[in-house]
Amino acid sequence: MTPAASSRAAARLLILCALSLGAQMRDPLPVPDVSGFRTLKGDFHIHTVFSDGEVWPVTRVEEAWRQGLDAIALSDHVNVHPHEPDVSADLRRPYEVARASAERLGIILIQGVEIAEGNLHCNALFVSDPNAFEGLGLQAALRKARNQDAFVFWNHPGWKQAPRWFPLIASAYEEKLINGMELVNGLTFYSEAYPWIEEKKLTILANSDVHAPIAFEYHDPRTRPITLVFARTADAGGVREALLARRTAAWMGGEVWGAEEFLNGFWERSIEPGKANFRFTRGTRSATLQIRNRFAIPYLLHVAKTVSWLAVGAGEIPAEGVAAVSLALLKDAPEGMHSVELEFEVTNLHVAPRRNLTVRLPITVEITE
Amino acid sequence: MTPAASSRAAARLLILCALSLGAQMRDPLPVPDVSGFRTLKGDFHIHTVFSDGEVWPVTRVEEAWRQGLDAIALSDHVNVHPHEPDVSADLRRPYEVARASAERLGIILIQGVEIAEGNLHCNALFVSDPNAFEGLGLQAALRKARNQDAFVFWNHPGWKQAPRWFPLIASAYEEKLINGMELVNGLTFYSEAYPWIEEKKLTILANSDVHAPIAFEYHDPRTRPITLVFARTADAGGVREALLARRTAAWMGGEVWGAEEFLNGFWERSIEPGKANFRFTRGTRSATLQIRNRFAIPYLLHVAKTVSWLAVGAGEIPAEGVAAVSLALLKDAPEGMHSVELEFEVTNLHVAPRRNLTVRLPITVEITE
Amino acid sequence: MTPAASSRAAARLLILCALSLGAQMRDPLPVPDVSGFRTLKGDFHIHTVFSDGEVWPVTRVEEAWRQGLDAIALSDHVNVHPHEPDVSADLRRPYEVARASAERLGIILIQGVEIAEGNLHCNALFVSDPNAFEGLGLQAALRKARNQDAFVFWNHPGWKQAPRWFPLIASAYEEKLINGMELVNGLTFYSEAYPWIEEKKLTILANSDVHAPIAFEYHDPRTRPITLVFARTADAGGVREALLARRTAAWMGGEVWGAEEFLNGFWERSIEPGKANFRFTRGTRSATLQIRNRFAIPYLLHVAKTVSWLAVGAGEIPAEGVAAVSLALLKDAPEGMHSVELEFEVTNLHVAPRRNLTVRLPITVEITE
Amino acid sequence: MTPAASSRAAARLLILCALSLGAQMRDPLPVPDVSGFRTLKGDFHIHTVFSDGEVWPVTRVEEAWRQGLDAIALSDHVNVHPHEPDVSADLRRPYEVARASAERLGIILIQGVEIAEGNLHCNALFVSDPNAFEGLGLQAALRKARNQDAFVFWNHPGWKQAPRWFPLIASAYEEKLINGMELVNGLTFYSEAYPWIEEKKLTILANSDVHAPIAFEYHDPRTRPITLVFARTADAGGVREALLARRTAAWMGGEVWGAEEFLNGFWERSIEPGKANFRFTRGTRSATLQIRNRFAIPYLLHVAKTVSWLAVGAGEIPAEGVAAVSLALLKDAPEGMHSVELEFEVTNLHVAPRRNLTVRLPITVEITE
Repeated sequence: MTPAASSRAAARLLILCALSLGAQMRDPLPVPDVSGFRTLKGDFHIHTVFSDGEVWPVTRVEEAWRQGLDAIALSDHVNVHPHEPDVSADLRRPYEVARASAERLGIILIQGVEIAEGNLHCNALFVSDPNAFEGLGLQAALRKARNQDAFVFWNHPGWKQAPRWFPLIASAYEEKLINGMELVNGLTFYSEAYPWIEEKKLTILANSDVHAPIAFEYHDPRTRPITLVFARTADAGGVREALLARRTAAWMGGEVWGAEEFLNGFWERSIEPGKANFRFTRGTRSATLQIRNRFAIPYLLHVAKTVSWLAVGAGEIPAEGVAAVSLALLKDAPEGMHSVELEFEVTNLHVAPRRNLTVRLPITVEITE
Repeated sequence: MTPAASSRAAARLLILCALSLGAQMRDPLPVPDVSGFRTLKGDFHIHTVFSDGEVWPVTRVEEAWRQGLDAIALSDHVNVHPHEPDVSADLRRPYEVARASAERLGIILIQGVEIAEGNLHCNALFVSDPNAFEGLGLQAALRKARNQDAFVFWNHPGWKQAPRWFPLIASAYEEKLINGMELVNGLTFYSEAYPWIEEKKLTILANSDVHAPIAFEYHDPRTRPITLVFARTADAGGVREALLARRTAAWMGGEVWGAEEFLNGFWERSIEPGKANFRFTRGTRSATLQIRNRFAIPYLLHVAKTVSWLAVGAGEIPAEGVAAVSLALLKDAPEGMHSVELEFEVTNLHVAPRRNLTVRLPITVEITE
Repeated sequence: MTPAASSRAAARLLILCALSLGAQMRDPLPVPDVSGFRTLKGDFHIHTVFSDGEVWPVTRVEEAWRQGLDAIALSDHVNVHPHEPDVSADLRRPYEVARASAERLGIILIQGVEIAEGNLHCNALFVSDPNAFEGLGLQAALRKARNQDAFVFWNHPGWKQAPRWFPLIASAYEEKLINGMELVNGLTFYSEAYPWIEEKKLTILANSDVHAPIAFEYHDPRTRPITLVFARTADAGGVREALLARRTAAWMGGEVWGAEEFLNGFWERSIEPGKANFRFTRGTRSATLQIRNRFAIPYLLHVAKTVSWLAVGAGEIPAEGVAAVSLALLKDAPEGMHSVELEFEVTNLHVAPRRNLTVRLPITVEITE
Repeated sequence: MTPAASSRAAARLLILCALSLGAQMRDPLPVPDVSGFRTLKGDFHIHTVFSDGEVWPVTRVEEAWRQGLDAIALSDHVNVHPHEPDVSADLRRPYEVARASAERLGIILIQGVEIAEGNLHCNALFVSDPNAFEGLGLQAALRKARNQDAFVFWNHPGWKQAPRWFPLIASAYEEKLINGMELVNGLTFYSEAYPWIEEKKLTILANSDVHAPIAFEYHDPRTRPITLVFARTADAGGVREALLARRTAAWMGGEVWGAEEFLNGFWERSIEPGKANFRFTRGTRSATLQIRNRFAIPYLLHVAKTVSWLAVGAGEIPAEGVAAVSLALLKDAPEGMHSVELEFEVTNLHVAPRRNLTVRLPITVEITE
């Protein structure tokens, strides 16, 4: 910088600062559509002052809008009303109160409710009367949810105890009263419960279970857990159909758990490799493969396969950024033109317990003296 | 959050943290192509240890790559060599030393040189022999630059003195030895010099003039000044042709100075208005217009024109974000269906001294009882 | 960095990341005690769901604790209850609900209320019955506040209209019903109202008037407006006595408005100049004066006075940081030992309209051949 | 916020923004003095353009000053000069070039050199002639270092190979040519080498080994590795004496490795517990213990011991922040007044391999009906 008066320089930057003041702005949090579906970002476990939450329902809509979500369910507890009688316990009210804001901001709003017995909690979404569950045990409540055509999932399967396929859950499952399970609740991933997703054909969910203002619980908004929903239409009906059809993935803190089809779709839609044809000479034995990621899901690459004479650097492809993966010829690299298929394990994209996504990048390598 | 062990929660976030450690990553800094040209991001005034800079030429290439630039010129001083004899004063060396890295990372590298007399400094780009200027006065040096087919611009026109159209500059200009001018150098914008851009038909430039490591001078990398070049081809020849043809804009700290054609192109390519048809009823007198910005240039909107019965909120459309502009019916709003053209002044996009870009957004408003 | 496996490096940093997850932590936001008083940080204008706010009263206490405040007043509107009948309109409840949390976290909690007529709003603090104001006009309400021994201040004096000394305010002031005024409300500073502080002997206040979760309105928590209270004791009684005695200052966004005595006290308690004795020789004509700031109020120094032969750089002394102020001998610097008193205007500390704090730093300069 | 014009609000915040522009400022990075010693923060492994580094020696001094260091050693490689002949290979020059800046900014500057044989590298500090090592094998070089009264440590003991007590190191150690070892180099902690610190009575070091501009390698400056030196005097002699006497600790990424005496001293000097006397009643069964940390080293507390009837939350005490540790009575809590000594393991402060610091906090608990 030339020695200009620093006060002048400061004034120049006013505009940038103004922009960061946080007027009403939304992080687009871009994720790719896959397999012909719209990818919607949802959080289906959220509390308000109508049970033991700390904020007004309208605020939950604005939080979702700011953080790039497309859909939320308000799911206050049936039997937990610590703010009574200051606040009504009528569980139809959170949805009714928030509806106008949701329409205005384009957020898909779903009426839900959290029902419980002991440490076993379930969320029922799309219920027509959330007050109908008052005073019921879990089984009776789940039957009522079925009668209301709800989509039901088991919340935080290891809450206050190690995760097990508890008898109460088992019998509800046998009766087809449970459709899904939170593999992620808040910042907790339930690894012990992961195998049940496939064994029991459950829908996978990741929800915040937020009670306080969202910023209290996630200083970096992009750590908020999100259920990715692969929907035919971007509306409540589309969310419902996709949840019932098990077309979801769980996303939290840079990690994604979901079916190979969808996760592979993310990779293929997100990644733009730069120049993939490399020429090495005696004097130039190394090169850089640039990979751009157009979306908000990062990729941590572990090199799974290369040819014996080519060293490939592990790569971290940041969200909406560009990575540089180093390539270096080893001693015995043969002269000539070669087609090489690099294979990477994506260590933060999980397609099954202990199995991560595998991806391939073809390059050509020309080696001359 | 459920009361899960916080150590567990922390472990979950390892991946996000790992991603922020700053392995070799590039900010794509996306800007739209306009008017059929490729928009290249350049910095054409950069120093290295070969004159009074503090870093090795290769490092300048990596800084540029990380910060999303496409093109740089290394432009060490002809007569300033404080590091001699520890460091060579051969001004061909910065370019030669950095060239392999630039090729590897895809950065367009330009050989430049800074020539000076007193407080009047000029950069000559695309010179064939940067050592040829040693010991020359400004006029002689500029003539030599012309003989080398250089593109020449006047640096920081208000350095150590108020900007004036100094006699030495005037006579060089008359002799057609000067093609452009830094409207922005470092964090300084030279408002007094702004009229000369149009009066003298100069090419507009914004450069860093960086001497220290770039992070010393710009903590937020996106405040670095950038010359936007509207090129036919993404190579050194393309940069040269565009600079000579005055197809550039200056970008610094959220502000852009350039021709209306290009700035309007930015707006049109960047902006995706959401739903633009609004229905108001007796109960709903307000609505939200969402505007998404797909690129890295922000827009500060001042409402220039609306209809008398519709209040429109000023909007700040953040880089790569979504803004919400509020609409509210006033008392005398007439029933029926109306086409309304909102007009905004974009207060951070400058098309001439004291004249900002004006943009329009058409909406339809339906008012029922 | 040596070429260690980057995954290993990432694991090492887990601890730092864990620490930034935002478990329940408080920013101490240190400010110095001055003139024998305890400096308390307060916000005396805060809303909850009990009027048109969006959060539960307990949450306001935790927000205050996290952001380093010592005292808050909950001051819901008397006649604004958009959440009725879902939420009670009993204005004693916010205080009662939040009291246990305030005690637990050591936050001084004050029962307040906001009363209004048209655009003229006042806050009454320390009221015994906030429900007693229902349905009253401003004058009647202010008289009732006096009967309850309240401390009363005029809120946002330019809300929806240019600030004027409105007749209704004037007559209440004549009747001694108003003790203070918000010079700052939210991010707005009312410059036109500033002279009234001294003319009318008002207590100066800076409050947030927060309705949404605090993080919505202040992305950077340290931009939140704060009333600095110079109290004899760190309790509600101490706050009350100081407010009545006009021992306060307004702090927002790096700027402070208050009496010279207190602002000078901040400077004297905050600043630790490093080595202040400089020796210049023929070869060394420049030096650096380091200044450490131990507290959270920054200082922007403009050089007001130096000796003719010594150039002094303008300095920005950051909150809890160290600044480097450059000193350079000019041509005519006389040999010998000199005592020099540098004088600075602190451009962000305002002691009266158009008058900033002036401070002095003595140094010695020894000049030898 | 009241609906004030947002442009006005933005202007108000100019000052805060100006302050964050990164004029020449130093992070004080406060750490406590312990055991009667001055705690100095050092980095004793740093490269410049004089070997394979990328920046000018003066820049290393300014980086250190900005990041809160007190002492650095410039330690360019003896036999690695990739920038020759553009840059001199005279290894006395980095120190000579940087000395004036170091004096001006108050940084203790140490002349060092890195000597090597294969993958085994050592740094020699306080050498009188860094050029004397040219062309020597490791053993010869280490003997020469001893003749120059150097302090010598083994660098990155697992570089390009698993750490072992290699024969070349063993014989040098037997000959008393090696005084210390880098337990941390860059972001790598060498756990396999940790036992040698005590077995061989080595001085513990944590250094950056930085080659590029420091901001390239540590985006968050507070992750930079630092050797904490417990010195009698804050000068080069004091550093030397402390290094020889093994009074150091290694600090990186929130973790510290060092002798129990010093780490316990950190805890005792840093921590200010708030109110430690708690009263529980039938209605109030929980409380909060606030703990303030005045310095830059964080503490991760794992509860090691409490009484059977009192649940204590794990705590993370942030650098220069305040933590809230929750206390909750369990069912069988006996009435009366109790003195309880809480015991915590500090999981980020390591006093020996697999042994962390243990600390105690006494509280009193009064339980009434």
